[in-house]
Amino acid sequence: MSIVVLGTVALDSLKTPNGIKKDLLGGSAAHFSMSARHFSSINLSAVVGYDFPLKHISMFKRKYINIDSLLIKKGKTFRWTGEYKVEDLNTAVTLDTTLGVILDTVPIVNEKQKNINNVFLANYDPDIQLAFLNTLNNPNFVGMDTMNLWIHTKKKSVAKVMKKVNLLILNDAEARDFTGEKNILKAAKSLISFGPKIVIIKKGEHGGLLYSKNYLFALPAYPLDEVIDPTGAGDTFAGGVMGYLAKSKKINAKTLIKAVSYGTIFSSFNVQGFGMEKTMNLSLARIHQRMNIFKQFFKF
Amino acid sequence: MSIVVLGTVALDSLKTPNGIKKDLLGGSAAHFSMSARHFSSINLSAVVGYDFPLKHISMFKRKYINIDSLLIKKGKTFRWTGEYKVEDLNTAVTLDTTLGVILDTVPIVNEKQKNINNVFLANYDPDIQLAFLNTLNNPNFVGMDTMNLWIHTKKKSVAKVMKKVNLLILNDAEARDFTGEKNILKAAKSLISFGPKIVIIKKGEHGGLLYSKNYLFALPAYPLDEVIDPTGAGDTFAGGVMGYLAKSKKINAKTLIKAVSYGTIFSSFNVQGFGMEKTMNLSLARIHQRMNIFKQFFKF
Repeated sequence: MSIVVLGTVALDSLKTPNGIKKDLLGGSAAHFSMSARHFSSINLSAVVGYDFPLKHISMFKRKYINIDSLLIKKGKTFRWTGEYKVEDLNTAVTLDTTLGVILDTVPIVNEKQKNINNVFLANYDPDIQLAFLNTLNNPNFVGMDTMNLWIHTKKKSVAKVMKKVNLLILNDAEARDFTGEKNILKAAKSLISFGPKIVIIKKGEHGGLLYSKNYLFALPAYPLDEVIDPTGAGDTFAGGVMGYLAKSKKINAKTLIKAVSYGTIFSSFNVQGFGMEKTMNLSLARIHQRMNIFKQFFKF
Repeated sequence: MSIVVLGTVALDSLKTPNGIKKDLLGGSAAHFSMSARHFSSINLSAVVGYDFPLKHISMFKRKYINIDSLLIKKGKTFRWTGEYKVEDLNTAVTLDTTLGVILDTVPIVNEKQKNINNVFLANYDPDIQLAFLNTLNNPNFVGMDTMNLWIHTKKKSVAKVMKKVNLLILNDAEARDFTGEKNILKAAKSLISFGPKIVIIKKGEHGGLLYSKNYLFALPAYPLDEVIDPTGAGDTFAGGVMGYLAKSKKINAKTLIKAVSYGTIFSSFNVQGFGMEKTMNLSLARIHQRMNIFKQFFKF
Protein backbone atom coordinates (compact mmCIF):
# COMPACT_ATOMS: atom_id res chain seq x y z
CA MET A 1 0.00 0.00 0.00
CA SER A 2 1.03 3.60 -0.48
CA ILE A 3 1.25 6.34 2.09
CA VAL A 4 1.64 10.06 1.61
CA VAL A 5 3.50 11.70 4.45
CA LEU A 6 3.60 15.44 4.98
CA GLY A 7 6.26 16.65 7.36
CA THR A 8 9.69 18.12 7.74
CA VAL A 9 13.02 17.01 6.33
CA ALA A 10 15.56 18.71 8.51
CA LEU A 11 19.17 19.01 9.53
CA ASP A 12 19.50 18.37 13.26
CA SER A 13 22.37 19.38 15.49
CA LEU A 14 22.57 17.74 18.87
CA LYS A 15 24.27 18.05 22.20
CA THR A 16 23.87 14.87 24.24
CA PRO A 17 25.73 13.14 27.08
CA ASN A 18 26.95 10.73 24.39
CA GLY A 19 28.41 13.32 22.06
CA ILE A 20 27.84 16.32 19.86
CA LYS A 21 26.61 15.99 16.29
CA LYS A 22 26.06 18.56 13.55
CA ASP A 23 23.63 18.56 10.62
CA LEU A 24 22.32 15.03 10.91
CA LEU A 25 19.48 14.13 8.57
CA GLY A 26 16.27 14.42 10.60
CA GLY A 27 12.76 15.84 10.50
CA SER A 28 9.38 14.26 11.13
CA ALA A 29 8.72 13.04 7.58
CA ALA A 30 12.22 11.66 7.16
CA HIS A 31 12.14 9.60 10.38
CA PHE A 32 8.60 8.45 9.61
CA SER A 33 9.63 7.26 6.16
CA MET A 34 12.64 5.38 7.46
CA SER A 35 10.42 2.90 9.32
CA ALA A 36 7.19 3.01 7.27
CA ARG A 37 9.13 2.07 4.09
CA HIS A 38 9.46 -1.51 5.36
CA PHE A 39 5.73 -2.07 4.95
CA SER A 40 4.40 0.47 2.45
CA SER A 41 5.48 2.64 -0.50
CA ILE A 42 6.25 6.02 0.91
CA ASN A 43 5.57 9.31 -0.85
CA LEU A 44 7.33 12.06 0.98
CA SER A 45 6.01 15.60 0.83
CA ALA A 46 8.33 18.19 2.33
CA VAL A 47 10.50 21.13 1.45
CA VAL A 48 14.27 21.61 1.76
CA GLY A 49 16.69 24.36 0.75
CA TYR A 50 19.56 24.47 -1.72
CA ASP A 51 21.96 23.65 1.12
CA PHE A 52 20.42 20.21 1.56
CA PRO A 53 23.16 17.60 1.07
CA LEU A 54 22.74 15.61 -2.13
CA LYS A 55 23.80 12.44 -0.35
CA HIS A 56 20.50 12.44 1.53
CA ILE A 57 18.54 12.75 -1.71
CA SER A 58 20.50 9.83 -3.04
CA MET A 59 19.77 7.87 0.15
CA PHE A 60 15.99 8.46 -0.12
CA LYS A 61 16.11 7.15 -3.66
CA ARG A 62 18.16 4.11 -2.64
CA LYS A 63 15.57 3.36 0.04
CA TYR A 64 12.75 3.59 -2.54
CA ILE A 65 11.22 6.57 -0.78
CA ASN A 66 9.38 8.52 -3.47
CA ILE A 67 10.61 12.11 -3.45
CA ASP A 68 8.63 13.41 -6.40
CA SER A 69 6.97 15.81 -3.95
CA LEU A 70 10.09 16.84 -2.08
CA LEU A 71 10.33 20.51 -3.04
CA ILE A 72 13.89 21.80 -3.29
CA LYS A 73 13.87 25.57 -3.02
CA LYS A 74 16.31 28.44 -2.92
CA GLY A 75 16.99 29.15 0.72
CA LYS A 76 17.98 27.28 3.84
CA THR A 77 16.83 23.85 4.96
CA PHE A 78 14.93 23.71 8.27
CA ARG A 79 17.49 23.29 11.05
CA TRP A 80 16.90 22.27 14.66
CA THR A 81 19.48 22.36 17.39
CA GLY A 82 18.65 20.58 20.61
CA GLU A 83 20.16 19.29 23.78
CA TYR A 84 19.45 16.20 25.90
CA LYS A 85 20.67 16.32 29.44
CA VAL A 86 21.85 13.33 31.41
CA GLU A 87 19.07 13.81 34.01
CA ASP A 88 16.34 13.36 31.42
CA LEU A 89 17.28 11.78 28.14
CA ASN A 90 13.62 11.72 27.17
CA THR A 91 13.18 15.47 26.90
CA ALA A 92 14.76 17.67 24.27
CA VAL A 93 15.66 21.25 25.09
CA THR A 94 15.50 23.33 21.92
CA LEU A 95 18.56 25.56 21.61
CA ASP A 96 17.86 26.95 18.17
CA THR A 97 15.39 26.67 15.31
CA THR A 98 15.98 28.00 11.79
CA LEU A 99 12.79 27.59 9.80
CA GLY A 100 14.32 28.53 6.45
CA VAL A 101 12.30 27.44 3.42
CA ILE A 102 9.48 25.85 5.40
CA LEU A 103 8.47 29.33 6.55
CA ASP A 104 6.80 30.32 3.29
CA THR A 105 6.18 27.08 1.43
CA VAL A 106 3.18 24.80 1.55
CA PRO A 107 4.25 21.27 0.58
CA ILE A 108 2.22 19.67 -2.16
CA VAL A 109 1.78 16.34 -3.84
CA ASN A 110 1.50 15.61 -7.54
CA GLU A 111 -1.73 14.62 -9.28
CA LYS A 112 -1.06 10.91 -9.02
CA GLN A 113 -0.21 11.06 -5.33
CA LYS A 114 -3.44 12.97 -4.64
CA ASN A 115 -5.28 9.67 -5.10
CA ILE A 116 -3.41 7.88 -2.33
CA ASN A 117 -5.75 6.91 0.51
CA ASN A 118 -3.34 6.59 3.43
CA VAL A 119 -2.03 9.87 4.71
CA PHE A 120 0.19 10.78 7.61
CA LEU A 121 0.35 14.38 8.73
CA ALA A 122 3.61 14.36 10.67
CA ASN A 123 4.37 17.21 13.02
CA TYR A 124 3.84 20.49 11.12
CA ASP A 125 1.94 23.75 11.39
CA PRO A 126 -1.70 22.54 11.77
CA ASP A 127 -2.98 25.11 9.23
CA ILE A 128 -0.65 23.61 6.68
CA GLN A 129 -1.64 20.05 7.71
CA LEU A 130 -5.28 20.98 7.04
CA ALA A 131 -4.60 22.78 3.77
CA PHE A 132 -2.51 19.83 2.61
CA LEU A 133 -5.19 17.32 3.54
CA ASN A 134 -7.76 19.34 1.59
CA THR A 135 -5.75 18.96 -1.62
CA LEU A 136 -6.09 15.16 -1.53
CA ASN A 137 -8.86 13.37 -3.40
CA ASN A 138 -9.79 10.52 -1.09
CA PRO A 139 -7.84 10.44 2.14
CA ASN A 140 -9.71 7.63 3.87
CA PHE A 141 -7.14 6.68 6.49
CA VAL A 142 -5.45 9.71 7.96
CA GLY A 143 -2.99 9.79 10.85
CA MET A 144 -1.57 12.86 12.51
CA ASP A 145 1.04 13.97 15.01
CA THR A 146 1.55 17.43 16.48
CA MET A 147 3.68 19.13 19.10
CA ASN A 148 3.38 21.38 22.15
CA LEU A 149 4.30 24.47 20.13
CA TRP A 150 1.11 24.12 18.05
CA ILE A 151 -1.03 23.11 21.01
CA HIS A 152 0.03 26.32 22.75
CA THR A 153 -0.11 28.68 19.77
CA LYS A 154 -2.76 27.19 17.45
CA LYS A 155 -4.93 24.89 19.51
CA LYS A 156 -8.07 25.60 17.46
CA SER A 157 -6.27 24.66 14.27
CA VAL A 158 -4.95 21.47 15.84
CA ALA A 159 -8.53 20.62 16.84
CA LYS A 160 -9.71 21.26 13.26
CA VAL A 161 -7.20 18.75 11.93
CA MET A 162 -8.09 16.25 14.64
CA LYS A 163 -11.68 16.32 13.46
CA LYS A 164 -10.55 14.88 10.14
CA VAL A 165 -8.22 12.12 11.23
CA ASN A 166 -8.65 8.44 12.00
CA LEU A 167 -5.51 8.06 14.06
CA LEU A 168 -3.94 10.59 16.40
CA ILE A 169 -0.45 9.83 17.68
CA LEU A 170 1.05 12.13 20.28
CA ASN A 171 3.15 11.98 23.41
CA ASP A 172 1.98 12.10 27.01
CA ALA A 173 2.98 15.73 27.62
CA GLU A 174 1.13 16.83 24.47
CA ALA A 175 -1.95 14.80 25.41
CA ARG A 176 -1.96 16.38 28.86
CA ASP A 177 -1.42 19.87 27.47
CA PHE A 178 -4.20 19.56 24.93
CA THR A 179 -6.80 18.08 27.26
CA GLY A 180 -5.80 19.42 30.67
CA GLU A 181 -6.14 15.85 31.98
CA LYS A 182 -3.25 14.54 34.05
CA ASN A 183 -4.34 10.92 33.81
CA ILE A 184 -3.28 9.44 30.46
CA LEU A 185 -6.37 7.27 29.97
CA LYS A 186 -8.64 10.21 30.74
CA ALA A 187 -6.62 12.32 28.30
CA ALA A 188 -7.05 9.63 25.62
CA LYS A 189 -10.81 9.54 26.23
CA SER A 190 -11.00 13.30 25.97
CA LEU A 191 -8.97 13.33 22.73
CA ILE A 192 -11.37 10.83 21.12
CA SER A 193 -14.15 13.34 21.65
CA PHE A 194 -12.34 15.74 19.29
CA GLY A 195 -12.76 13.40 16.33
CA PRO A 196 -10.01 10.81 15.94
CA LYS A 197 -11.24 7.22 15.97
CA ILE A 198 -8.01 5.94 17.55
CA VAL A 199 -5.60 7.70 19.88
CA ILE A 200 -2.09 6.48 20.64
CA ILE A 201 -0.27 8.20 23.48
CA LYS A 202 3.49 7.61 23.53
CA LYS A 203 5.35 7.69 26.83
CA GLY A 204 8.94 7.35 25.59
CA GLU A 205 10.87 4.80 27.65
CA HIS A 206 7.61 3.87 29.40
CA GLY A 207 5.88 2.57 26.28
CA GLY A 208 2.45 3.68 25.19
CA LEU A 209 -1.29 3.36 25.24
CA LEU A 210 -3.82 2.88 22.45
CA TYR A 211 -7.41 3.91 23.00
CA SER A 212 -10.53 3.84 20.84
CA LYS A 213 -14.20 3.11 21.28
CA ASN A 214 -13.51 -0.59 20.84
CA TYR A 215 -9.94 -1.06 21.94
CA LEU A 216 -7.65 -0.34 24.84
CA PHE A 217 -4.07 -1.56 24.89
CA ALA A 218 -0.96 -0.65 26.81
CA LEU A 219 2.50 -1.75 25.78
CA PRO A 220 5.88 -1.26 27.44
CA ALA A 221 8.85 0.09 25.52
CA TYR A 222 11.50 -2.38 24.45
CA PRO A 223 13.96 -2.36 27.38
CA LEU A 224 17.34 -0.95 26.42
CA ASP A 225 20.37 -0.40 28.58
CA GLU A 226 21.52 2.61 26.64
CA VAL A 227 19.78 5.47 24.90
CA ILE A 228 22.07 7.44 22.61
CA ASP A 229 19.71 9.92 20.97
CA PRO A 230 15.90 9.89 21.16
CA THR A 231 15.44 12.46 18.35
CA GLY A 232 12.89 11.15 15.88
CA ALA A 233 11.80 8.21 18.05
CA GLY A 234 8.18 9.36 17.95
CA ASP A 235 8.20 9.78 14.16
CA THR A 236 9.92 6.41 13.74
CA PHE A 237 7.23 4.88 15.97
CA ALA A 238 4.47 6.52 13.91
CA GLY A 239 6.06 5.21 10.71
CA GLY A 240 5.99 1.66 12.04
CA VAL A 241 2.35 2.00 13.10
CA MET A 242 1.03 3.66 9.93
CA GLY A 243 3.21 1.54 7.64
CA TYR A 244 1.90 -1.66 9.15
CA LEU A 245 -1.73 -0.53 9.22
CA ALA A 246 -1.62 0.62 5.61
CA LYS A 247 -0.12 -2.73 4.59
CA SER A 248 -2.61 -4.83 6.52
CA LYS A 249 -5.54 -2.82 5.14
CA LYS A 250 -7.84 -3.57 8.05
CA ILE A 251 -8.20 -2.25 11.55
CA ASN A 252 -8.84 -4.81 14.21
CA ALA A 253 -7.40 -5.78 17.60
CA LYS A 254 -4.68 -7.89 16.04
CA THR A 255 -3.51 -5.41 13.40
CA LEU A 256 -3.55 -2.55 15.91
CA ILE A 257 -1.47 -4.45 18.47
CA LYS A 258 0.96 -5.56 15.79
CA ALA A 259 1.21 -2.02 14.42
CA VAL A 260 1.96 -0.56 17.85
CA SER A 261 4.48 -3.32 18.50
CA TYR A 262 6.29 -2.64 15.25
CA GLY A 263 6.33 1.05 16.11
CA THR A 264 7.84 0.14 19.48
CA ILE A 265 10.55 -2.02 17.93
CA PHE A 266 11.45 0.53 15.24
CA SER A 267 11.77 3.31 17.77
CA SER A 268 13.94 1.13 20.02
CA PHE A 269 16.46 0.95 17.20
CA ASN A 270 16.15 4.66 16.51
CA VAL A 271 17.20 5.70 20.02
CA GLN A 272 20.26 3.45 19.97
CA GLY A 273 22.12 5.70 17.57
CA PHE A 274 22.35 9.34 16.52
CA GLY A 275 19.88 10.49 13.89
CA MET A 276 19.17 7.58 11.56
CA GLU A 277 22.38 5.71 12.27
CA LYS A 278 20.52 2.60 13.41
CA THR A 279 17.37 2.80 11.31
CA MET A 280 18.77 3.66 7.89
CA ASN A 281 20.25 0.24 7.19
CA LEU A 282 17.96 -1.79 9.38
CA SER A 283 16.75 -5.05 7.85
CA LEU A 284 13.30 -6.50 8.38
CA ALA A 285 15.09 -9.61 9.66
CA ARG A 286 16.64 -7.68 12.55
CA ILE A 287 13.29 -6.06 13.30
CA HIS A 288 11.64 -9.45 13.48
CA GLN A 289 14.44 -10.80 15.63
CA ARG A 290 13.78 -8.09 18.22
CA MET A 291 10.02 -8.42 17.74
CA ASN A 292 10.28 -12.08 18.65
CA ILE A 293 12.05 -11.24 21.89
CA PHE A 294 9.40 -8.61 22.61
CA LYS A 295 6.59 -11.11 21.98
CA GLN A 296 8.11 -13.49 24.52
CA PHE A 297 7.37 -10.91 27.22
CA PHE A 298 3.68 -11.62 26.87
CA LYS A 299 3.48 -15.36 26.44
CA PHE A 300 1.26 -16.16 29.36
CA MET B 1 2.02 -23.78 49.11
CA SER B 2 2.86 -21.76 52.20
CA ILE B 3 4.65 -18.47 52.46
CA VAL B 4 6.07 -16.75 55.51
CA VAL B 5 6.01 -12.99 55.20
CA LEU B 6 7.92 -10.69 57.51
CA GLY B 7 6.84 -7.08 57.42
CA THR B 8 4.80 -4.35 59.00
CA VAL B 9 1.15 -4.25 59.93
CA ALA B 10 0.39 -0.57 60.28
CA LEU B 11 -2.23 2.08 60.66
CA ASP B 12 -1.97 4.55 57.79
CA SER B 13 -3.33 8.07 57.68
CA LEU B 14 -3.54 9.74 54.31
CA LYS B 15 -4.01 13.09 52.70
CA THR B 16 -4.81 12.75 49.01
CA PRO B 17 -6.55 14.82 46.33
CA ASN B 18 -9.40 12.30 46.72
CA GLY B 19 -9.87 12.70 50.43
CA ILE B 20 -8.42 12.37 53.92
CA LYS B 21 -8.38 9.05 55.79
CA LYS B 22 -7.28 8.15 59.30
CA ASP B 23 -5.93 4.84 60.68
CA LEU B 24 -6.53 2.62 57.68
CA LEU B 25 -5.17 -0.90 57.93
CA GLY B 26 -1.87 -0.92 56.04
CA GLY B 27 1.75 -2.02 56.26
CA SER B 28 3.96 -4.06 53.94
CA ALA B 29 3.04 -7.51 55.29
CA ALA B 30 -0.67 -6.75 55.42
CA HIS B 31 -0.87 -5.53 51.80
CA PHE B 32 1.34 -8.43 50.67
CA SER B 33 -0.93 -10.96 52.37
CA MET B 34 -4.07 -9.47 50.88
CA SER B 35 -3.04 -10.53 47.36
CA ALA B 36 -0.75 -13.53 48.06
CA ARG B 37 -3.58 -15.29 49.97
CA HIS B 38 -5.36 -16.00 46.68
CA PHE B 39 -2.62 -18.44 45.67
CA SER B 40 -0.84 -19.61 48.84
CA SER B 41 -1.34 -20.05 52.58
CA ILE B 42 0.04 -16.96 54.22
CA ASN B 43 1.84 -16.91 57.55
CA LEU B 44 2.16 -13.35 58.68
CA SER B 45 5.01 -12.33 60.98
CA ALA B 46 4.71 -8.81 62.35
CA VAL B 47 4.16 -6.87 65.53
CA VAL B 48 1.34 -4.54 66.55
CA GLY B 49 0.45 -2.68 69.74
CA TYR B 50 -2.46 -2.93 72.14
CA ASP B 51 -4.19 -0.13 70.24
CA PHE B 52 -4.53 -2.31 67.14
CA PRO B 53 -8.24 -2.60 66.27
CA LEU B 54 -9.62 -6.07 66.91
CA LYS B 55 -11.70 -5.88 63.74
CA HIS B 56 -8.50 -6.21 61.69
CA ILE B 57 -7.46 -9.31 63.63
CA SER B 58 -10.85 -10.73 62.90
CA MET B 59 -10.51 -9.84 59.23
CA PHE B 60 -7.12 -11.62 58.93
CA LYS B 61 -8.69 -14.72 60.40
CA ARG B 62 -11.66 -14.50 58.06
CA LYS B 63 -9.26 -14.28 55.11
CA TYR B 64 -7.40 -17.39 56.33
CA ILE B 65 -4.23 -15.41 56.90
CA ASN B 66 -2.36 -17.25 59.63
CA ILE B 67 -1.58 -14.82 62.47
CA ASP B 68 0.03 -17.24 64.89
CA SER B 69 3.19 -15.14 64.56
CA LEU B 70 1.55 -11.75 64.77
CA LEU B 71 2.95 -10.45 68.05
CA ILE B 72 0.58 -8.20 69.99
CA LYS B 73 2.55 -6.14 72.46
CA LYS B 74 1.95 -3.41 74.99
CA GLY B 75 2.58 -0.14 73.23
CA LYS B 76 1.56 1.61 70.04
CA THR B 77 1.06 0.12 66.59
CA PHE B 78 3.34 1.45 63.84
CA ARG B 79 1.66 4.46 62.27
CA TRP B 80 2.48 6.19 59.01
CA THR B 81 0.99 9.48 57.86
CA GLY B 82 1.55 10.44 54.24
CA GLU B 83 0.39 12.78 51.57
CA TYR B 84 -0.06 12.38 47.83
CA LYS B 85 -0.19 15.56 45.81
CA VAL B 86 -2.21 16.04 42.67
CA GLU B 87 0.95 16.72 40.63
CA ASP B 88 2.41 13.31 41.38
CA LEU B 89 0.04 10.66 42.67
CA ASN B 90 2.86 8.11 42.43
CA THR B 91 5.04 9.59 45.13
CA ALA B 92 4.19 9.64 48.84
CA VAL B 93 5.42 12.45 51.02
CA THR B 94 5.87 11.17 54.58
CA LEU B 95 4.35 13.59 57.07
CA ASP B 96 4.83 11.53 60.20
CA THR B 97 6.09 8.13 61.33
CA THR B 98 5.45 6.62 64.76
CA LEU B 99 7.45 3.39 65.05
CA GLY B 100 5.84 2.27 68.31
CA VAL B 101 6.28 -1.42 69.08
CA ILE B 102 8.30 -2.23 65.97
CA LEU B 103 11.16 -0.17 67.42
CA ASP B 104 12.27 -2.79 69.94
CA THR B 105 10.73 -6.06 68.74
CA VAL B 106 12.13 -8.62 66.33
CA PRO B 107 9.26 -10.53 64.74
CA ILE B 108 9.52 -14.29 64.96
CA VAL B 109 7.81 -17.38 63.63
CA ASN B 110 6.81 -20.49 65.51
CA GLU B 111 8.63 -23.82 65.21
CA LYS B 112 6.27 -25.17 62.59
CA GLN B 113 6.49 -22.06 60.42
CA LYS B 114 10.30 -22.23 60.55
CA ASN B 115 10.09 -25.12 58.10
CA ILE B 116 8.27 -23.16 55.42
CA ASN B 117 10.40 -22.79 52.28
CA ASN B 118 8.90 -19.69 50.69
CA VAL B 119 9.75 -16.47 52.45
CA PHE B 120 9.05 -12.86 51.67
CA LEU B 121 10.97 -10.19 53.50
CA ALA B 122 8.70 -7.21 52.96
CA ASN B 123 10.02 -3.72 53.58
CA TYR B 124 11.66 -3.70 57.04
CA ASP B 125 14.95 -2.82 58.71
CA PRO B 126 17.47 -4.96 56.75
CA ASP B 127 19.24 -6.10 59.94
CA ILE B 128 15.93 -7.51 61.15
CA GLN B 129 15.23 -9.04 57.71
CA LEU B 130 18.57 -10.87 57.96
CA ALA B 131 18.14 -11.96 61.59
CA PHE B 132 14.65 -13.21 60.77
CA LEU B 133 15.86 -15.15 57.73
CA ASN B 134 18.54 -16.80 59.86
CA THR B 135 15.93 -18.23 62.21
CA LEU B 136 14.33 -20.24 59.39
CA ASN B 137 15.31 -23.86 58.72
CA ASN B 138 15.20 -24.12 54.96
CA PRO B 139 14.27 -20.90 53.19
CA ASN B 140 14.83 -22.03 49.62
CA PHE B 141 12.83 -19.38 47.79
CA VAL B 142 13.28 -15.97 49.35
CA GLY B 143 11.95 -12.68 48.05
CA MET B 144 12.68 -9.25 49.43
CA ASP B 145 11.66 -5.62 49.16
CA THR B 146 13.30 -2.59 50.74
CA MET B 147 12.98 1.18 50.70
CA ASN B 148 15.08 4.31 50.19
CA LEU B 149 15.38 4.89 53.94
CA TRP B 150 17.37 1.65 54.34
CA ILE B 151 19.37 2.18 51.15
CA HIS B 152 20.48 5.55 52.49
CA THR B 153 21.09 4.57 56.12
CA LYS B 154 21.99 0.84 55.99
CA LYS B 155 23.15 0.07 52.47
CA LYS B 156 25.64 -2.59 53.60
CA SER B 157 22.92 -4.43 55.50
CA VAL B 158 20.60 -4.26 52.50
CA ALA B 159 23.39 -5.76 50.39
CA LYS B 160 23.86 -8.55 52.95
CA VAL B 161 20.19 -9.51 52.67
CA MET B 162 20.34 -9.27 48.87
CA LYS B 163 23.09 -11.89 48.87
CA LYS B 164 20.64 -14.39 50.36
CA VAL B 165 17.58 -13.83 48.21
CA ASN B 166 16.27 -15.35 45.00
CA LEU B 167 13.94 -12.53 44.09
CA LEU B 168 14.45 -8.82 44.68
CA ILE B 169 11.45 -6.54 44.11
CA LEU B 170 11.93 -2.82 44.37
CA ASN B 171 10.87 0.36 42.66
CA ASP B 172 12.73 2.40 40.06
CA ALA B 173 13.86 5.15 42.46
CA GLU B 174 15.22 2.55 44.90
CA ALA B 175 16.99 0.67 42.10
CA ARG B 176 18.60 3.88 40.91
CA ASP B 177 19.56 4.92 44.44
CA PHE B 178 21.14 1.59 45.27
CA THR B 179 23.11 1.20 42.05
CA GLY B 180 23.74 4.76 40.96
CA GLU B 181 22.55 3.73 37.48
CA LYS B 182 19.97 5.97 35.85
CA ASN B 183 19.01 3.46 33.20
CA ILE B 184 16.60 0.87 34.63
CA LEU B 185 17.98 -2.10 32.71
CA LYS B 186 21.53 -1.22 33.73
CA ALA B 187 20.33 -0.88 37.33
CA ALA B 188 18.72 -4.34 37.12
CA LYS B 189 21.95 -5.83 35.77
CA SER B 190 23.93 -4.21 38.55
CA LEU B 191 21.49 -5.48 41.21
CA ILE B 192 21.87 -9.06 39.96
CA SER B 193 25.58 -8.83 40.73
CA PHE B 194 24.70 -8.38 44.42
CA GLY B 195 23.20 -11.85 44.64
CA PRO B 196 19.50 -12.06 43.74
CA LYS B 197 18.74 -14.44 40.89
CA ILE B 198 15.79 -12.38 39.69
CA VAL B 199 15.20 -8.64 39.93
CA ILE B 200 11.85 -6.96 39.39
CA ILE B 201 11.83 -3.19 39.13
CA LYS B 202 8.43 -1.58 39.57
CA LYS B 203 7.67 1.72 37.85
CA GLY B 204 4.24 2.48 39.29
CA GLU B 205 1.84 3.62 36.57
CA HIS B 206 4.50 2.76 33.97
CA GLY B 207 4.58 -0.95 34.75
CA GLY B 208 7.71 -2.89 35.44
CA LEU B 209 10.68 -4.88 34.29
CA LEU B 210 11.90 -8.36 35.23
CA TYR B 211 15.54 -9.23 34.74
CA SER B 212 17.58 -12.36 35.41
CA LYS B 213 20.40 -14.24 33.72
CA ASN B 214 17.88 -16.06 31.57
CA TYR B 215 14.93 -13.74 31.34
CA LEU B 216 14.05 -10.19 30.46
CA PHE B 217 10.46 -8.96 30.40
CA ALA B 218 8.77 -5.60 30.51
CA LEU B 219 5.09 -5.16 31.23
CA PRO B 220 2.89 -2.06 31.26
CA ALA B 221 0.65 -1.25 34.18
CA TYR B 222 -3.05 -1.95 33.77
CA PRO B 223 -4.40 1.37 32.41
CA LEU B 224 -6.74 3.10 34.84
CA ASP B 225 -8.49 6.39 34.50
CA GLU B 226 -8.40 7.12 38.20
CA VAL B 227 -5.91 6.45 40.98
CA ILE B 228 -7.37 6.97 44.43
CA ASP B 229 -4.54 5.86 46.73
CA PRO B 230 -1.36 4.08 45.68
CA THR B 231 -0.34 3.15 49.26
CA GLY B 232 0.56 -0.52 49.39
CA ALA B 233 0.51 -1.00 45.60
CA GLY B 234 4.09 -2.29 45.63
CA ASP B 235 3.39 -4.75 48.46
CA THR B 236 0.18 -5.88 46.77
CA PHE B 237 2.17 -6.41 43.57
CA ALA B 238 4.82 -8.43 45.44
CA GLY B 239 2.09 -10.55 47.04
CA GLY B 240 0.67 -11.44 43.63
CA VAL B 241 4.12 -12.32 42.29
CA MET B 242 5.32 -14.38 45.28
CA GLY B 243 1.93 -15.98 45.82
CA TYR B 244 1.75 -17.19 42.25
CA LEU B 245 5.37 -18.38 42.13
CA ALA B 246 4.99 -20.28 45.40
CA LYS B 247 1.85 -21.92 44.07
CA SER B 248 3.32 -22.88 40.70
CA LYS B 249 6.44 -24.27 42.36
CA LYS B 250 8.67 -23.74 39.36
CA ILE B 251 10.43 -20.79 37.85
CA ASN B 252 10.32 -20.53 34.10
CA ALA B 253 9.42 -17.93 31.51
CA LYS B 254 5.73 -18.72 31.70
CA THR B 255 5.38 -18.74 35.49
CA LEU B 256 7.44 -15.56 35.81
CA ILE B 257 5.34 -13.68 33.26
CA LYS B 258 2.14 -14.91 34.84
CA ALA B 259 3.39 -13.98 38.30
CA VAL B 260 4.29 -10.45 37.23
CA SER B 261 0.96 -10.12 35.43
CA TYR B 262 -0.98 -11.16 38.51
CA GLY B 263 1.05 -8.68 40.54
CA THR B 264 0.11 -6.01 38.01
CA ILE B 265 -3.59 -6.84 38.17
CA PHE B 266 -3.70 -7.01 41.99
CA SER B 267 -1.97 -3.67 42.32
CA SER B 268 -4.35 -2.11 39.78
CA PHE B 269 -7.21 -2.92 42.14
CA ASN B 270 -5.25 -1.69 45.15
CA VAL B 271 -4.80 1.83 43.79
CA GLN B 272 -8.49 2.18 42.95
CA GLY B 273 -9.45 2.56 46.58
CA PHE B 274 -8.09 3.76 49.91
CA GLY B 275 -6.07 1.25 51.91
CA MET B 276 -7.46 -2.22 51.23
CA GLU B 277 -10.91 -1.04 50.19
CA LYS B 278 -10.64 -2.74 46.80
CA THR B 279 -8.43 -5.71 47.62
CA MET B 280 -9.96 -6.98 50.83
CA ASN B 281 -13.07 -8.45 49.23
CA LEU B 282 -11.65 -9.07 45.79
CA SER B 283 -12.61 -12.39 44.22
CA LEU B 284 -10.35 -14.47 42.01
CA ALA B 285 -13.10 -14.23 39.41
CA ARG B 286 -12.74 -10.44 39.20
CA ILE B 287 -8.98 -10.78 39.05
CA HIS B 288 -9.25 -13.18 36.14
CA GLN B 289 -11.75 -10.93 34.43
CA ARG B 290 -9.25 -8.07 34.45
CA MET B 291 -6.39 -10.45 33.66
CA ASN B 292 -8.22 -11.51 30.51
CA ILE B 293 -8.52 -7.92 29.36
CA PHE B 294 -4.82 -7.41 30.12
CA LYS B 295 -3.88 -10.50 28.11
CA GLN B 296 -5.73 -9.15 25.09
CA PHE B 297 -3.21 -6.32 24.93
CA PHE B 298 -0.56 -8.75 23.79
CA LYS B 299 -2.36 -11.03 21.38
CA PHE B 300 -0.17 -10.51 18.37
